[in-house]
Amino acid sequence: MLAEFDLIRRYFMSSQEASTASNGVTLGCGDDATLLIPPAGQQLAVSVDTSVVDVHFPREAPAFAVGHRALAVALSDLAAMGAASRWCLMALTLDQRQFADDEATHAWLDDYALGFHALSQQHATTLVGGDVTSGALSIGVTVMGEVPVGEAFTRGGAQVGDLIAVTGALGGGAGGLALWQQGERDLAHPLLSRYLLPQPRLAAGLALRGLATAALDISDGLLADLAHLREASQVGAVIALDALPLADQLESTLGRETALRAALSGGDDYELLVTLSANDVATAQQRLAPLGLTLTVIGHCCEALGVSASDQSDLSGYAGWQHFSGEAP
Amino acid sequence: MLAEFDLIRRYFMSSQEASTASNGVTLGCGDDATLLIPPAGQQLAVSVDTSVVDVHFPREAPAFAVGHRALAVALSDLAAMGAASRWCLMALTLDQRQFADDEATHAWLDDYALGFHALSQQHATTLVGGDVTSGALSIGVTVMGEVPVGEAFTRGGAQVGDLIAVTGALGGGAGGLALWQQGERDLAHPLLSRYLLPQPRLAAGLALRGLATAALDISDGLLADLAHLREASQVGAVIALDALPLADQLESTLGRETALRAALSGGDDYELLVTLSANDVATAQQRLAPLGLTLTVIGHCCEALGVSASDQSDLSGYAGWQHFSGEAP
Repeated sequence: MLAEFDLIRRYFMSSQEASTASNGVTLGCGDDATLLIPPAGQQLAVSVDTSVVDVHFPREAPAFAVGHRALAVALSDLAAMGAASRWCLMALTLDQRQFADDEATHAWLDDYALGFHALSQQHATTLVGGDVTSGALSIGVTVMGEVPVGEAFTRGGAQVGDLIAVTGALGGGAGGLALWQQGERDLAHPLLSRYLLPQPRLAAGLALRGLATAALDISDGLLADLAHLREASQVGAVIALDALPLADQLESTLGRETALRAALSGGDDYELLVTLSANDVATAQQRLAPLGLTLTVIGHCCEALGVSASDQSDLSGYAGWQHFSGEAP
Repeated sequence: MLAEFDLIRRYFMSSQEASTASNGVTLGCGDDATLLIPPAGQQLAVSVDTSVVDVHFPREAPAFAVGHRALAVALSDLAAMGAASRWCLMALTLDQRQFADDEATHAWLDDYALGFHALSQQHATTLVGGDVTSGALSIGVTVMGEVPVGEAFTRGGAQVGDLIAVTGALGGGAGGLALWQQGERDLAHPLLSRYLLPQPRLAAGLALRGLATAALDISDGLLADLAHLREASQVGAVIALDALPLADQLESTLGRETALRAALSGGDDYELLVTLSANDVATAQQRLAPLGLTLTVIGHCCEALGVSASDQSDLSGYAGWQHFSGEAP
């Protein structure tokens, strides 16, 4: 049986030591709290996300993916604010009964830590706090970032006439889950990779500063998240179904109807949904190109509240995916 | 079935709205992240703690106590730094299957939120982020506080010759758990109250600024936490068992031997363990008196590493309480 302090030291502290001095950390993990130097002249953006086994990821998911994904979904919230990520805290609840022996526990933790750290380093995010407890497998990640005063995106800034656009491709999260449920286990499969190893769009968020009038990340599904934006901004939306950028191999693997459903209501894509002036679309696309990321206009904001399809398709059948009720897409 | 957004809005946003404007919050719960104005000229102290059902609190614990306790144990880490609490984020994982119906869920959440908010308001701590997910009952709380640069307590500042002292009384946490396991359910019982409704010593932490040379909170048990301090400060410790301030009714309820064991290794007391110069003890006690809190000298730091009892008692039988392994005291 591993003790909490051993766990935190062994898997989560050593690899961070080197980076702390340069990232505003004056006292790192291992004391009661960590001391940070807050960024001068900036606002702090903070958010928390919990990933629960059998709800947000499958019990048999590779530990590397579990670590990556738990951090990715939290970082995605900072991306949606246009914030630069700085620090994170991780609360890991681990069910040791799921492992045959200590060796199996260590192997899982090694792999988990590798996934978590690889992504944290990619985004210059220093792990500044941790807690390890015993119980059903679950990871709570708190992320902290910074954004210049007045430059953060909110959900409430969309104006009538703004175009609606998304980064990257949609439907991969739900499509990957469907494949997983059919037994696919190759993480190199583009859809499975979208589901288990989502990439938080932090660089895109920074690139869109000054252009996006509103933004959020697509975690609950395009229609559900668009509803949050519509409600906060008090606008309606018209969506062009033909314009939706579908994830690679989504349509060929699952068929047109399922692909469309995955894109509209599947969730777990962690792309950014933004509104912006038509005049700014080309600039935004030019800024995202070096990131290897597309920005696709999928509709526009209108005065009449509610959401409709430009081709008059009935959208009412596409309900949002509520994580809380654990519904499959 | 309640949706996540409804839950957060209903139980965790409304009561906070009033306080946000005055506490450095420029954008509260309900967007992807919350925007905070970091304190100028201060360091941020951050920490995370997870409370898991059947590990940190009993399944049948009153919801009010579950909410109070989850926040209290996290705030206790800020107290141990001498930090003033400002903000918190709460990740609630809730198992709706434990409730007979929606009405029972609402009743539990009402009571839980009451416990959480009462304590957060008592300590001027604004809830700035939340996440509600489905799974085994568990609460992760991230706390953020502020402390002037250079004034935070660490675990590593104790010097040979410093006295060792504790706030309040010891053993109540473990004693209360023992009573609970014997069927006691009256929250007004002083021991049960110590276990289920611990009071984070934030005011004491502030009062001890400039006096304590090292500090931590007693969550794992006096001997275990003292070991963390000894290791970080590279000092040894001599403890006077007769000096230990035992919680009210602890000895009369459980007997001398169990009381001593609870005080030394039971954990969950959330008192502050501090070191300080003998010259500063009287000042420290004077500052704590208006808070209704005692400061009791229980030993001193010595050169020889390790820990011993001043009366030569054998301390080796008092193992620390490891939360992770779920051991009872």
